[in-house]
Amino acid sequence: MNSSHAAADEPIGVAVIGAGYWGPNLVRNFQNSAEFRLRWLCDLEVRRAQRVLGDYSTVQATDDLAAVLADDKVRAVAVATPAGSHLEVAMAALRAGKHVLVEKPLAASVEQGRALVAEAERRGLSLMCDHTYCYTPAVLRIRELLHGGELGELQYLDSVRINLGLVQRDIDVMWDLAPHDLSILDFILPPGVAPVSVAAHGADRIGAGRACVAYLTLHLNTGAIAHIHVNWLSPVKIRTAIIGGSKRTLVWDDLNPGQRLSIFDRGVDVASADELGDEQRRDMLVSYRSGDMVAPALTEREALRTMVEEFARSIRGGTPALTDGRAGLRVLALLEAATRSLAEGGSLIALDEESPE
Amino acid sequence: MNSSHAAADEPIGVAVIGAGYWGPNLVRNFQNSAEFRLRWLCDLEVRRAQRVLGDYSTVQATDDLAAVLADDKVRAVAVATPAGSHLEVAMAALRAGKHVLVEKPLAASVEQGRALVAEAERRGLSLMCDHTYCYTPAVLRIRELLHGGELGELQYLDSVRINLGLVQRDIDVMWDLAPHDLSILDFILPPGVAPVSVAAHGADRIGAGRACVAYLTLHLNTGAIAHIHVNWLSPVKIRTAIIGGSKRTLVWDDLNPGQRLSIFDRGVDVASADELGDEQRRDMLVSYRSGDMVAPALTEREALRTMVEEFARSIRGGTPALTDGRAGLRVLALLEAATRSLAEGGSLIALDEESPE
Amino acid sequence: MNSSHAAADEPIGVAVIGAGYWGPNLVRNFQNSAEFRLRWLCDLEVRRAQRVLGDYSTVQATDDLAAVLADDKVRAVAVATPAGSHLEVAMAALRAGKHVLVEKPLAASVEQGRALVAEAERRGLSLMCDHTYCYTPAVLRIRELLHGGELGELQYLDSVRINLGLVQRDIDVMWDLAPHDLSILDFILPPGVAPVSVAAHGADRIGAGRACVAYLTLHLNTGAIAHIHVNWLSPVKIRTAIIGGSKRTLVWDDLNPGQRLSIFDRGVDVASADELGDEQRRDMLVSYRSGDMVAPALTEREALRTMVEEFARSIRGGTPALTDGRAGLRVLALLEAATRSLAEGGSLIALDEESPE
Amino acid sequence: MNSSHAAADEPIGVAVIGAGYWGPNLVRNFQNSAEFRLRWLCDLEVRRAQRVLGDYSTVQATDDLAAVLADDKVRAVAVATPAGSHLEVAMAALRAGKHVLVEKPLAASVEQGRALVAEAERRGLSLMCDHTYCYTPAVLRIRELLHGGELGELQYLDSVRINLGLVQRDIDVMWDLAPHDLSILDFILPPGVAPVSVAAHGADRIGAGRACVAYLTLHLNTGAIAHIHVNWLSPVKIRTAIIGGSKRTLVWDDLNPGQRLSIFDRGVDVASADELGDEQRRDMLVSYRSGDMVAPALTEREALRTMVEEFARSIRGGTPALTDGRAGLRVLALLEAATRSLAEGGSLIALDEESPE
Repeated sequence: MNSSHAAADEPIGVAVIGAGYWGPNLVRNFQNSAEFRLRWLCDLEVRRAQRVLGDYSTVQATDDLAAVLADDKVRAVAVATPAGSHLEVAMAALRAGKHVLVEKPLAASVEQGRALVAEAERRGLSLMCDHTYCYTPAVLRIRELLHGGELGELQYLDSVRINLGLVQRDIDVMWDLAPHDLSILDFILPPGVAPVSVAAHGADRIGAGRACVAYLTLHLNTGAIAHIHVNWLSPVKIRTAIIGGSKRTLVWDDLNPGQRLSIFDRGVDVASADELGDEQRRDMLVSYRSGDMVAPALTEREALRTMVEEFARSIRGGTPALTDGRAGLRVLALLEAATRSLAEGGSLIALDEESPE
Repeated sequence: MNSSHAAADEPIGVAVIGAGYWGPNLVRNFQNSAEFRLRWLCDLEVRRAQRVLGDYSTVQATDDLAAVLADDKVRAVAVATPAGSHLEVAMAALRAGKHVLVEKPLAASVEQGRALVAEAERRGLSLMCDHTYCYTPAVLRIRELLHGGELGELQYLDSVRINLGLVQRDIDVMWDLAPHDLSILDFILPPGVAPVSVAAHGADRIGAGRACVAYLTLHLNTGAIAHIHVNWLSPVKIRTAIIGGSKRTLVWDDLNPGQRLSIFDRGVDVASADELGDEQRRDMLVSYRSGDMVAPALTEREALRTMVEEFARSIRGGTPALTDGRAGLRVLALLEAATRSLAEGGSLIALDEESPE
Repeated sequence: MNSSHAAADEPIGVAVIGAGYWGPNLVRNFQNSAEFRLRWLCDLEVRRAQRVLGDYSTVQATDDLAAVLADDKVRAVAVATPAGSHLEVAMAALRAGKHVLVEKPLAASVEQGRALVAEAERRGLSLMCDHTYCYTPAVLRIRELLHGGELGELQYLDSVRINLGLVQRDIDVMWDLAPHDLSILDFILPPGVAPVSVAAHGADRIGAGRACVAYLTLHLNTGAIAHIHVNWLSPVKIRTAIIGGSKRTLVWDDLNPGQRLSIFDRGVDVASADELGDEQRRDMLVSYRSGDMVAPALTEREALRTMVEEFARSIRGGTPALTDGRAGLRVLALLEAATRSLAEGGSLIALDEESPE
Repeated sequence: MNSSHAAADEPIGVAVIGAGYWGPNLVRNFQNSAEFRLRWLCDLEVRRAQRVLGDYSTVQATDDLAAVLADDKVRAVAVATPAGSHLEVAMAALRAGKHVLVEKPLAASVEQGRALVAEAERRGLSLMCDHTYCYTPAVLRIRELLHGGELGELQYLDSVRINLGLVQRDIDVMWDLAPHDLSILDFILPPGVAPVSVAAHGADRIGAGRACVAYLTLHLNTGAIAHIHVNWLSPVKIRTAIIGGSKRTLVWDDLNPGQRLSIFDRGVDVASADELGDEQRRDMLVSYRSGDMVAPALTEREALRTMVEEFARSIRGGTPALTDGRAGLRVLALLEAATRSLAEGGSLIALDEESPE
């Protein structure tokens, strides 16, 4: 019997691995959730773990991963180490029978990611990817609007995520920032809509040894286009997405707390191509809508809190999380294709016909 | 003796051809300039020309281009007809010995543009391209800052020009809007810096028969990257450019009259690659500057007014305008390459080694 | 028979008096309106009138007001001279049987304003005040929303109109800018709602001899409050009003063309005081609404164009304009009371029980 | 020997009283400071204190204030209870020999505040007021700029602090929000500059039994004016101050993290009144500066962290904190005068000649 069959009303014992940039956020949110009982914070440098916990905490700091995994009271493990070690740490946790939450990206390659997904499925364990943005009230609402048809069919998505960011030692700006946009795209696309090819351009003008500015273009199977601009060098911080639908267009400005989402009943309509002959097509009827804009009220709720609850739901229910390992794999496949395109000067890379899973 | 040798202090007789979208702006600015005397507004539909002039004007409306070109008092002609007729109208004007100002783009193709440039040079006449944005106080200042070295070397340029725009009958969004961005790029790049290849992606998701959303990526001979996003379908209007330099980064927000330019002394520095061994390169020293931001005071001056004065200066001095025919040709070469890339699914198109001129 | 009984379909002959700051806008709008035929532009300095008309106009420039008023073809006169001469010029025009449009404020004092209103009424002529902002699409919509009850009852109005402005030689910032806000307030208040007292504070810290910063507080007969901040010294330009209603609250940002009006279904409700005993009152039920925000689509239309049409409608129909002389008088009464308060250190000045008219 | 003479390098034992809205912020910041050792969180409802501490804390929760004050290891007490109980709690702490930090406002009245200041001075204990905003990097910089003369002499200060806020049960919007603005004003004014009179207007249009919208006007001894707008009913959140100086004008937008401060070298100059005769005065020379705007780089640092360090500095050094009890008293005096003005319909209330202390 694996540890996932404990009493439903008992908090789930959890350990966080990695006390770097992201770990403290997980520590805080597991502590604030009645669903979990945080038992360990583990880091290669135990002093770093201690510093994160502070002087007033009853949580144990350690640098001994094996001891954490050997703790029967730990049923779940959250991995917030650098991507290069995700395979090793997450695999060890799965093999120890723990449910696993992994910080994005799922792993350093599709191949590694596949191994994790296979292991989790074999063992009937939850493998969840911490695609945090998917759990913001804004993205949850965008998903509803696209799935529910209120925006109509997706025409284009344009995402900008730029800031003066830390130039990473091991990964380029695309692997650092684009997982956010790609996981959001994966999360909000209605069933049956998916990217079929990717092209990427980038530049390393400061001589960092890796792209610090990158542009990704994704062509979808519907003819729609998605475009992502990520940039570590921008002195201004912008986090905006425009999601053009056939009925309405949505603008998401994540840095405007008073008006994160704006839904415009404004746009261009063209008489359906099917109804028109060639001659007409040239003289097509373009009409413009210029209706109101609605900014829906959103509850303010920390995304990580919702994410942590989804992890609990997945563990207790034995069902995949909304952003499960397979979602993580799809994002990895896009990143790998984009990396190939970047190396080839922007050539269009088709995504495998077969599912990446 | 051609008509350009008239007395220096006498207003230059001018005619505007085309009373559509742009013509009225030229009419107004020629009227307000002491350098010019507007004599004719010519349009295929004379009533349209009359409507533009209104009930109180002494300027003559006509639909007879030949009569305009036969008027000895007309020394200069401004062409504001659709791009498809630029060659015909501008060539006729040049052959009649008139100096010519052409609305962007210079012509419908590089080949046509070359013919106009050759004709003007043969006849010693001014051929100027109305790259209006180049004459805004903001772009003139950006040019100064880049040429003068205050921003350092260009690292990247990211330009966004999106709005709910008129879906044009004959051209796609790239030919409609990108000439603005490409002409600005051409105008501000310091001597010796130039694009070497172009890739373009676009989508026509509304079935308009031409791209309504497009992304252009330009690689420069310095390794820098320029990227342009043009879009007819956006319910929000954005006209922003970020120009990253090795010393400072400039943000231009053309819709913020109180703060059009912001110059950030903020950025990332990397120890020069030349000074570093491979080992060091991995451990490179990245440092961050986080200095002040300065928003320089700009005079508010209509760009067309400055443009019209530059046309007068060029005519009177017999010297090329800042945005002369050759500048127009360079923009056309970029547009043609981008169009080819778009048709080929985004492949990288090298710009001819030889100058497009 | 006065000149207002001419054929309904014939353009109304009009003259503009004053070629200073505002006159040119009137000239342009009368020229663009099919309802009017502009015949004269009159200024004490005829060269100034000529400069405004430019080199291409068929309109006559003059410095001879008597000649203008003697012209039978002139049925209407628009007065755009300094406020100090409004009485003299407008009275002369009325006595010559002309309909009169006066730039705000109607006159330099309530007494002068009353004389004009009386004269116009005696002669059955239109006397209209050019309260331009009332004719913006935004203010027209606000009026509809308040009159129609969609905002509920007015709770507060807060208006900010600040900018680096010209320090006027003859009037303080209150007389320069507050007429805009006061005329808007007068225009949008539902029938029966009106100010009952005014207090004003100001400062002349730069030694200009008159207030350059001023704050007006108006108490309404409903218990609602209105507050106006006008300022000539602000380096940032702000033109915002918040209009709190019992049902919804509206924010008007006149400098945000993409979202001038925002209507928030967000606010605080308190159980009606009438239903509560004293004890309950202390434990009153406060509830918060946090619904959506709607930014209604507005047509973009120049206010002066609508204003000019309203002038024509009033002349042709023989009915008062929306912003007639009496509206101008009410604004003058508020300004005079505010001036008294300012002189008395901010004391609350009751407005005359009797209508100022 | 009172407890303030302990070893300088030992953390200062501290207790927080009050686990409501503000207490948790103090708990977090005392825990993060190496200067302090948090020993107790005390609340009338011990479960509330426990909830704030969470399941992982070693800090003791209690509802027994006497026990806390009897703890020798507690040398300092932070009071975050409702204003009505500040006198009682803070006085007990002072009498037990503890240094005291009090949440704003210092007490419920000037009289109560005076008693606390006197007690602390008699005992040589630190009494500090938690005027949090004074410790933001923005306000610290503003103080530097005003004290250092870079803005010139203060001409006007306009502060807006509006939001959809909790309608408080015991205090009006003025007592809830204006202490922020008044404490900032007190903090940044250069030596010798001080308010001399106050007027206040307000409205309780929703029937809450207390003002929900209020406007305060302060006249300073230099002729400058300060104005504060506080509002619980606004659906939009605004926290902006404009600080006009004779040399430069500063705009503080606290909700714009990328550009909190903007310093404009833009303004109006008038030739000094002293140099001019009466005649000249009418024809005075007004000149306009339109220089650059500079947005200084600010470190991002939580204000409470700096505040907590200032408390430690004051305790260890035996010197008054920047926002000591006397600063709290001055704010109380302004609030009391404003309350009187509000009750009297906005009449101008002179502040006592003698210092309120």
